[in-house]
Formats: sequence, structure tokens, C-alpha cells
Amino acid sequence: MTSAPPAPKAAPWYGAKPMNPVRIGVVTLSDRASQGLYDDLSGQAIARTLTEWLSTPWEQVYRLIPDDRPTIERTLIDLVDAERCAWIVTTGGTGPAPRDVTPEATEAVCTKLLPGFGELMRAVSLRSVPTAILSRQTAGIRGSSLIVNLPGKPTAIRECLTAVFPAVPYCLDLIGAPFLEATPAAPTPFRPKGTPVKASPG
Amino acid sequence: MTSAPPAPKAAPWYGAKPMNPVRIGVVTLSDRASQGLYDDLSGQAIARTLTEWLSTPWEQVYRLIPDDRPTIERTLIDLVDAERCAWIVTTGGTGPAPRDVTPEATEAVCTKLLPGFGELMRAVSLRSVPTAILSRQTAGIRGSSLIVNLPGKPTAIRECLTAVFPAVPYCLDLIGAPFLEATPAAPTPFRPKGTPVKASPG
Amino acid sequence: MTSAPPAPKAAPWYGAKPMNPVRIGVVTLSDRASQGLYDDLSGQAIARTLTEWLSTPWEQVYRLIPDDRPTIERTLIDLVDAERCAWIVTTGGTGPAPRDVTPEATEAVCTKLLPGFGELMRAVSLRSVPTAILSRQTAGIRGSSLIVNLPGKPTAIRECLTAVFPAVPYCLDLIGAPFLEATPAAPTPFRPKGTPVKASPG
Repeated sequence: MTSAPPAPKAAPWYGAKPMNPVRIGVVTLSDRASQGLYDDLSGQAIARTLTEWLSTPWEQVYRLIPDDRPTIERTLIDLVDAERCAWIVTTGGTGPAPRDVTPEATEAVCTKLLPGFGELMRAVSLRSVPTAILSRQTAGIRGSSLIVNLPGKPTAIRECLTAVFPAVPYCLDLIGAPFLEATPAAPTPFRPKGTPVKASPG
Repeated sequence: MTSAPPAPKAAPWYGAKPMNPVRIGVVTLSDRASQGLYDDLSGQAIARTLTEWLSTPWEQVYRLIPDDRPTIERTLIDLVDAERCAWIVTTGGTGPAPRDVTPEATEAVCTKLLPGFGELMRAVSLRSVPTAILSRQTAGIRGSSLIVNLPGKPTAIRECLTAVFPAVPYCLDLIGAPFLEATPAAPTPFRPKGTPVKASPG
Repeated sequence: MTSAPPAPKAAPWYGAKPMNPVRIGVVTLSDRASQGLYDDLSGQAIARTLTEWLSTPWEQVYRLIPDDRPTIERTLIDLVDAERCAWIVTTGGTGPAPRDVTPEATEAVCTKLLPGFGELMRAVSLRSVPTAILSRQTAGIRGSSLIVNLPGKPTAIRECLTAVFPAVPYCLDLIGAPFLEATPAAPTPFRPKGTPVKASPG
């Protein structure tokens, strides 16, 4: 067996590819970035992380909008109902300032809230900064879509995504969204035993 | 003093017994178990745990119903207002799936919510599974009754009950429900100093 | 350098003093203390702690009122809208008993809720007592004021204030309230890098 070739470390084959890529919404809330005053580094950080972590083919549906509650609600509804995104992540607008209204907009369009996402993200961020308790981020379900608020700062985005990502694929299974698979670089998704598996690593 | 008999380790005497047993509601939410498609292992796990932990005489008021919000609300109201249950535990229906509506039904019938129960149960379950953040379980007060949502899986039920049980007897004291005492096998209930004690161990 | 005088330990100079002291509301909710049946030790504990921790000149706006929801709401609105308090701390009325309605009154007068405050305070109190999950304390924003519910017991007040205080000055910055500075005795306030600093220690 010493002559056996080493197992490939990179680019493993993750089962049969679905016909259509999974659609994932990335929504950046920022008055200034939406006016072109600076680059949307937060949205880029999310796209980069998901590209690194998802092995299931996916495509991004991107929106950069101001911190305006009706606009945020309209955008989230459009990404779920028309664009058929399975998962939508927002960044920005979760603090206590007057223009921070992302959690309120999210709650307004969701039929079901998932308080555990916000609790865990705040607990994780608290290890870095005591001001993590000022973040009001939440998550919820609309139709067959999961909406998750992330913070606005790129480093905090990565930290929070790392904490909640393992629960996202199973959540999508439960709400009837497409089956999502992760690369070895991702925080390992958890599916309880007995969960039907669509495709296993080769 | 070396000849003194050892203190009894088992079956201590827990004070005068009340005339009427404390009534505790156990409500299992499950479309399939309520159709007789499988046994209600969750409800049985709760009953077994409470039998092991409560020294105060109690009787179970049991309901096995489908994941239907109006039915859940009607059942909870009946258990509080008519059946006079001091404590009601539900199992099932707390996830993100379309038929999971136990938290919404609980919030609708309670006059006061206790977010700390859900926070603690999710934090404890997170040590076992990252999908604990998908649980939306909560707790609340209706009249002189405490309603607590537990998860659906028997192992998670035991884990969550162990976490919240120490706070339940004092909560019942505060809302005017009967005085509940625990066996040495139970996670020790906590009552702040100065709390009037009805009966002390012999 | 051995002959250098030791740095002063007390009364350091914390930059230019604002013209008007910052106004901070301290609201004690207690049916019995408001009837003069006992001293308001809780309100005194808050005032003593803030005196020890704040270097910015401030003045207390104090209210001792019964656990009556309309009275609490009216008082909080008055302290924000008329008395121009930048920060309001309440003590008492956060438990599950019928007369405990401080969180409901707080939510009713706030335009924005900060669930992270309650989560952190419960998590911290849980290290001392398992009944911490019975506390329903929350926090929120009304106008340019931050309202924070603290528990009723003096020891728990100190514990909870210690946990949340580091986030308070930056929260006030974000909502347009006055700049708050702390003494070396206080849990160190955190302001993210890049935050404009009004005055630095001498």
C-alpha cells in the first residue's frame, strides 16, 4: 500500500451538480457606499467567503442600497419572491444609530424569526469587542428562503459567518430550499443523523 | 460523636404533602405522532424526567396534538385556564420548518415572555450541535402558569430541562403557583435567601 | 528618573469640561419603596457606581415610582423628551411576577431595541444564580437616549452594570448623545478605532 498515490488534497469532486446554480442574495446596506462614496468592501468580503466555502454551484444576486427601511423591505421581498434566492445575507444597518433599520426591515418581511442567529453572533463578537451588544442583527424565514443579518465590518462579517454557517445548509433543507454543500475550507455544516444526503464527497 | 448514626442518604422526608397534587401539562406537538404513525417518545421522556426529579406529588395532564397553531393555542389556554396546570412543557414544533409554530402559539397565549429560557437552552444545545441556533424555543407566563417550550428530540429534552429546571420552582413561587420541591436526583432548584420556605428536608 | 514624582492616583484631569453636565436618569421601580416602606438601596447603588465611574460631569435625574406600567412609560418619556437625559437606567420590575412590567414599558417607549444588553446581563448573572433566566431585562433607544433595565438587587446591579458599561459611551456617540468619559476605576469603555475622540486624558 506504500505505492498508493496520495489522496488528492485539492478540488475534490462533490457529487452530481444540480442543473441550476443556487441563488444567494448579498445585500449591502450603506448610505455612503450606495452613493458611490466608497467601495463596498463588506459585500466583497461576503462574496469572497462564500466562493471559498461553497462547493455547490451558486450565483450571487447583489444589491447595494441605502439605509432606508422601505427600500430594504422591497429588496428583500424581491430577492425571495422574484429572484428565488435560497439564502440572503445582509451587511450593515444593525447598530443603534437612527439610520440603522436592517433588523426591523428583516423582521417585517419574515414569517418566522430565528433569534438564535443573533444571540450566537453577538456572543462570538463579544469575545473581540464589548460593543458587540450594540448589534441588533437577527435572522428569519420568508417562504423557502433564509435571511441572515451580518454586521457591517469585514472582519466581523467573517467571524459571524464562521459561527452560523454550520447551521445554514440544514436550515435550508428544513425550509425546502436547495441542498447546499461546503468545501473542506468551510466550517463543517452539520446535518443530524438520518437526514437524507443528496450527494456525498467522492 | 463517632457512634452517631450516619445521616440517611436515600428517601429523605420532604415536608408535609399538599392535599392536591400539582398539575403539570405535557404537550407533544407532532403531526405524525398525533396520527399514531409512531410513539410519542418525547412526551414519555419528559414524564420520566419529571417523575425522577419531583418530590412534590404531581399529576400529568397530557396532550398529543398536530403542529397546528390554533390547536396549540386552544390546548395551552385550556391547560392553564381550565385544567389549572402550574407548569406546562411542550415538545416539538420549534424549528424553522413551515409546520413549526409552537413558539408563535406560546407567545400568543402568554401575557409575559421569558427570553432567558430560550437563550439558555440554545446556548446549552450549541455545545452539542451547531444547529441549535435553528431552535426558536421560548417560555412565558399565562396567569399563574409557566409555559416552557422544549425541543423535540429526547436527548435534547433532557439537556434543556437540566439547564432550566433549577429556576422553575422559584418562578412558580413568584407567579403564585404551587410550591414545587425536588428530589436529590434533580438539578438543585435555587431560591434566593429570604424566600419563605414552605417545608424543609427533615 | 527615580526622583520623578509618582503619577497622581486620584482626580486626574479628563480634558475640557462641557458647559452643561450630562443628565442621567435613575428610575427605581418598586411598589414598596415608593410608598416609603423601605429605603431605595437599588437607586443608591446605581448613583454610587456612576459617581465612581464617570469622569464627565453629570447630574442625576431621579425617580422612585410604583410598578405601574402607565406610570413607568410616562416617566421614561418625560426623562427623555423633557428632562433630556442621555442615559436612563431603571432598577426593578424585570421578573415574572404580575407587577413586573418594566421591560414591557421600556419596549413601548423605545423606537429601537437592543436585545444584546439583556442577553449579556442574563449570561453574566447566570454565573451567580440559575434564576437569572427569570430576568426579562432589555434596553433600547428613544430619540437620543439609551434606556437600560437593570435588576433590582444591589449586588446584581453592580454585576450587570460592569458587563454593559464598556458599550454605553460608544452607544451614546452613535445616537447623538453627549460624549461620556470614564475614570480609571470604571470598566474601560470601548470605542472602535477611527472614532473621533473629543478629549483625551491629560
